[in-house]
Amino acid sequence: MLHIHILTVLPELLESPFAHSIMKRAQEKGLLEIHVHQLRKWAVNKYGMVDDYQYGGGAGMVMMCEPLANAIDELQKDQRFDEIIYMTPDGSRFDQKRANLLSLKNNLLIICGHYKGIDERIRQQYVTMEISIGDYVLSGGELAAAVVVDAIGRLIPGVLNDETSALTDSFQDNLLAPPVYTRPADFRGMTVPDILLQGDPKKVEDWRYEQAVQRTKDRRPDLMSDL
Amino acid sequence: MLHIHILTVLPELLESPFAHSIMKRAQEKGLLEIHVHQLRKWAVNKYGMVDDYQYGGGAGMVMMCEPLANAIDELQKDQRFDEIIYMTPDGSRFDQKRANLLSLKNNLLIICGHYKGIDERIRQQYVTMEISIGDYVLSGGELAAAVVVDAIGRLIPGVLNDETSALTDSFQDNLLAPPVYTRPADFRGMTVPDILLQGDPKKVEDWRYEQAVQRTKDRRPDLMSDL
Repeated sequence: MLHIHILTVLPELLESPFAHSIMKRAQEKGLLEIHVHQLRKWAVNKYGMVDDYQYGGGAGMVMMCEPLANAIDELQKDQRFDEIIYMTPDGSRFDQKRANLLSLKNNLLIICGHYKGIDERIRQQYVTMEISIGDYVLSGGELAAAVVVDAIGRLIPGVLNDETSALTDSFQDNLLAPPVYTRPADFRGMTVPDILLQGDPKKVEDWRYEQAVQRTKDRRPDLMSDL
Repeated sequence: MLHIHILTVLPELLESPFAHSIMKRAQEKGLLEIHVHQLRKWAVNKYGMVDDYQYGGGAGMVMMCEPLANAIDELQKDQRFDEIIYMTPDGSRFDQKRANLLSLKNNLLIICGHYKGIDERIRQQYVTMEISIGDYVLSGGELAAAVVVDAIGRLIPGVLNDETSALTDSFQDNLLAPPVYTRPADFRGMTVPDILLQGDPKKVEDWRYEQAVQRTKDRRPDLMSDL
């Protein structure tokens, strides 16, 4: 059972991504628990203040130390977090290996930044892992957190109906996935490779491996250097 | 005005991410229009069938040609898409440069894959751009599409309240953002760097640049090779 706690000023953004499909099933099966906490519960005043102007001036607000520190302290009374994760574009790059590792944990706390980010002192004092889902900037950490939860959640054994499905995904073996086809065999004159229609499992397997290698060479030669 | 059309079997996943905060504001200001289409509207039978077993065998369903082709054909009657984008882990890596470019377009169609992905023939025949948001596998393309829409949407001029805010984000200048601080100056004994408190704009600017360079060197030296 993996428990994921998420701290955010916009819990409403995360309503639908966890309420349907695979993430819903994971929770219904009791394999995953997701707790989304409104950071304003720990605001510094009755107006719900959690951010302030940045020292040194400049555009964009900064999320204050106190609400975050108090929230984390309170949540930590009830559980020990394996990692306190901050979603930030300057964090280390999230990848399938990281997803595999995190899917084995019991308790994760994910902090969603907003505005210009969180006060540096919280990063130094509380955060144990800084994750970026890619080299681009989002309006907040919420969608990034949703991506991480989805990538992790589907790897928990029992979440996917067919467990072999995740094992043949891209990246699990440092190769991109081969092309896939389904019926009809001829769609507007575009046909499916013969070898897939002939039904010789060994030949299909060889073809898929070759295609995966070729696609990886063409598109992501950097992945192959890890082989 | 940017029009983004999204084709998905799980439109309900995308309800909340576009309904709040910055994406909501962008739509209310008339700067962004998001149309989420249920692919099953173009299903091949009355049971809403849009996927089938893959040729050659193996776990995981494949999204069929016909519903996708018919959906795209119909949508294209009403507009010319600048790009028909397929979200897939073997696509080219989404980054801030790509976000900038896409934010200048008028009409985008984003196809969300599910299961093992879409039939290869649709990729060859219809798709003009394949995008991956990172080296990990999600349960579907919906969250990836949400990430792309968010990254693009906030760059449309007028969407962010303070336009300079996006310009000082990570990646816009191949540097990570410097640390940020807000009040109080002393939080549980952890203090803010003096230079930010002294209020000399030139010194603050120099310090931030140095910090950004140092952080990029420490965390992402690969970004600096592009300078």
